[in-house]
Amino acid sequence: MADFLTPQSEDFSRWYNEIVQKADLADYSPVRGCMVIKPYGYTLWENIREALDRRFKATGHVNAYFPLFIPMSFLQKEAEHVEGFAPELAVVTHGGGEKLEEPLVVRPTSETIIGYMYAKWIQSYRDLPVLINQWANVVRWEMRTRLFLRTTEFLWQEGHTAHATREEALEETMRILDLYTDFAVNDAAIPVIPGRKSESEKFAGAVNSYTIEAMMKDGKALQSGTSHFLGQNFAKAFDIKFLDENNQLQYVWTTSWGVSTRMVGAIVMTHGDDQGLVLPPRLAPTQVVIVPIWRKKKEREAVLEAARSLYERLRPVVRVHLDEREGFSPGWKFHDWEMRGVPLRLELGPRDLASGTVVAARRDIPGREGKRVLQMAEVEQAVPALLEEVQAGIYRKALDFREAHTWEVESYEALKEAVAQGFARAWWCGDPACEAAIKEETKATIRCLPQDQPGGKGRCIYCGKEAHEVALFGRAY
Amino acid sequence: MADFLTPQSEDFSRWYNEIVQKADLADYSPVRGCMVIKPYGYTLWENIREALDRRFKATGHVNAYFPLFIPMSFLQKEAEHVEGFAPELAVVTHGGGEKLEEPLVVRPTSETIIGYMYAKWIQSYRDLPVLINQWANVVRWEMRTRLFLRTTEFLWQEGHTAHATREEALEETMRILDLYTDFAVNDAAIPVIPGRKSESEKFAGAVNSYTIEAMMKDGKALQSGTSHFLGQNFAKAFDIKFLDENNQLQYVWTTSWGVSTRMVGAIVMTHGDDQGLVLPPRLAPTQVVIVPIWRKKKEREAVLEAARSLYERLRPVVRVHLDEREGFSPGWKFHDWEMRGVPLRLELGPRDLASGTVVAARRDIPGREGKRVLQMAEVEQAVPALLEEVQAGIYRKALDFREAHTWEVESYEALKEAVAQGFARAWWCGDPACEAAIKEETKATIRCLPQDQPGGKGRCIYCGKEAHEVALFGRAY
Repeated sequence: MADFLTPQSEDFSRWYNEIVQKADLADYSPVRGCMVIKPYGYTLWENIREALDRRFKATGHVNAYFPLFIPMSFLQKEAEHVEGFAPELAVVTHGGGEKLEEPLVVRPTSETIIGYMYAKWIQSYRDLPVLINQWANVVRWEMRTRLFLRTTEFLWQEGHTAHATREEALEETMRILDLYTDFAVNDAAIPVIPGRKSESEKFAGAVNSYTIEAMMKDGKALQSGTSHFLGQNFAKAFDIKFLDENNQLQYVWTTSWGVSTRMVGAIVMTHGDDQGLVLPPRLAPTQVVIVPIWRKKKEREAVLEAARSLYERLRPVVRVHLDEREGFSPGWKFHDWEMRGVPLRLELGPRDLASGTVVAARRDIPGREGKRVLQMAEVEQAVPALLEEVQAGIYRKALDFREAHTWEVESYEALKEAVAQGFARAWWCGDPACEAAIKEETKATIRCLPQDQPGGKGRCIYCGKEAHEVALFGRAY
Repeated sequence: MADFLTPQSEDFSRWYNEIVQKADLADYSPVRGCMVIKPYGYTLWENIREALDRRFKATGHVNAYFPLFIPMSFLQKEAEHVEGFAPELAVVTHGGGEKLEEPLVVRPTSETIIGYMYAKWIQSYRDLPVLINQWANVVRWEMRTRLFLRTTEFLWQEGHTAHATREEALEETMRILDLYTDFAVNDAAIPVIPGRKSESEKFAGAVNSYTIEAMMKDGKALQSGTSHFLGQNFAKAFDIKFLDENNQLQYVWTTSWGVSTRMVGAIVMTHGDDQGLVLPPRLAPTQVVIVPIWRKKKEREAVLEAARSLYERLRPVVRVHLDEREGFSPGWKFHDWEMRGVPLRLELGPRDLASGTVVAARRDIPGREGKRVLQMAEVEQAVPALLEEVQAGIYRKALDFREAHTWEVESYEALKEAVAQGFARAWWCGDPACEAAIKEETKATIRCLPQDQPGGKGRCIYCGKEAHEVALFGRAY
């Protein structure tokens, strides 16, 4: 035992660092800014990947793989792009014992090298659209790092698509934003606010960036996925042209979009509590843990036998683990699995054997209230149903939390108060100067211009001039 | 059309380069030595990965992820290791705009950084065994590269395990060798010869390396997977120690093992023919393609409708594609899918509709002989059964080829003749000098000391001294 967590209310940031390590999600590595994703954390990432990949494939995308290294000159072809990424680059100057003629950059993102290949592959409108995704590692040199949230190397998927028309590319950008929203809500149980980034916050090289923004339990925002409409910026930089149906040479329209291992951090900080992780059943590495309980030695065999039989029955329907460890009390095991956020615990003791029942304890509802007695005869139906209840329950709880920490503000004072605890929705005139002043004075940035707009017009929360859009303000990770 | 391949018999190497690109498996990239894995090739790799990953998990392994970058000093801790890898390193000297204090190496393999972490994680015998695998990209600076076979960056899995005893680590090394053999034989349909590497061919830092060796259609050998027993070499270099059950501090015993994207090249060169790829059904991205055939426009709708209904019926049981492309003749489509190696083609025309049948054409048996008429009522059973026949058929064919190109030789002259066309099995005294001389004179190396040994003793094929093992000689990729 003695493995206590700092309470969230005392120091959320410390709680986060502790739980990520104690629950075996990740560890610090000897390489500055790089993390080690431990098996438990990696399995969570595998499940995230699988849930996204399924959606990509269902919408016609295919996976491919492009080189880790990018010639430095490629990045320089798109002015905004190189300006945005230059300060964060890791540079390979030597290979095979010799100095390279041109330094190679370790990809911070792959628009440029993929753009180069698309120029080679795309000739005619018949070659379009190109709908490719890549699962890869990328490197962005970071000064201040946090496990999963901001690391020098991270894992992600990056989609890169090319289209014949502006409309199709815009449609793709929004299709992916919807896909990310659907994944966040239905699999990660994270309520997100989809919207457009302001000019100052958009991706370096994009015409428009779209984002899904989530609220963490400390009221701060976490950008959890982005989808970029790149217009013809990269098409022009890399000369990606096609002959259209009228035999006219045209530049393609491109998009790019990504979700990274940061999503693991989002799950931790959306659902976790003072006992540890609370994982959404659809993504949890282990959905159900069976803890056998006995006091007298003679009870042991019967309980273990029943537990094994229960395990075998549940194995085809859920990701279940039977905790047979010797030398640990049931209470210790409860604590251990709670810390790891397993959504459902099944407690099986001699009394349950006699009554043909098993006690199910929900991770998301502490104490008696979260317990239910299941009939052993019905576990194959009851357990998956209960997992769905947990899934819906934690989503509801996160949504309630966000709603309780979001304010429609009509004064700058109210905005300041709001962003100290959560989000503020306020009219914004669109002037980057107002945005910058608010950031300077409150540390809050425009997380997005939400898709969900009231319509009509209002007065800018900062300058009071006419405004046509409501912006979402918050302090961000 | 006009998309002809150089015949294998004319120039096998050229045939390989052409088919890899024409079948859309991979393309050259603008970065020296790095390739782009195109969607078709990447899907094949995904299927390979899935088939291996399933086996790893079934044998108790879990996945994790370690940093891409390794401090240069780490490699230097194991003398043989750094000597073997130093000439092939890519080195990052700058990050975030500044020169690094210590250069970082882009991982060529991860024994060192993982060893460092294991030293941190492993304290007691209770922490053992550690059975971790990683799916990752690695970089080895190569002078002469070939798509999939030898590229500066490649994708692979690398298993790294730590054990309490020598016996357990040896057992793990052999378990993985068996697992690789099982995968190669049963999924990739590649007959392989498992065995031990000679001292000169073993992994830099290993006590013993084991390999599965396959014969390509040009008679050359391709090392297709390796499993290394590392003894306590890395444990001592990284101080990976544990308290055993008697409270004694001991070094752990480690293993490492890997299969890479090179396996794609192995599949291409084991099964491919002058018409293109021949993919094993268990790994093929598309197992079955339906080509609808009509001459008169009025037949079109009925045929397409039947083809779509056939597609829907097959979709739950096999990976099927319906080729509805307009403007291409059935003959052109046949050619196209043959090049891509789809194991089974279903031809559906007006006559088939009338008779309630469909013609199945096997990719591995050309012409009439490979065709069979299936009853439409039974396709859900008949098609998967036929795929199993193809799977077994191409394995048999590859095995026959290898056996026809392998000779038990008793004279050095016979060895020379044999390795010009395939493999030679010959007694070897174990002296590296004989091995080196044979390599120098014949370009053939000891691919392995096969597990399958005749026993007893013989005379070394080179020096004539007493020999206790038979070695497998061949020219290798």
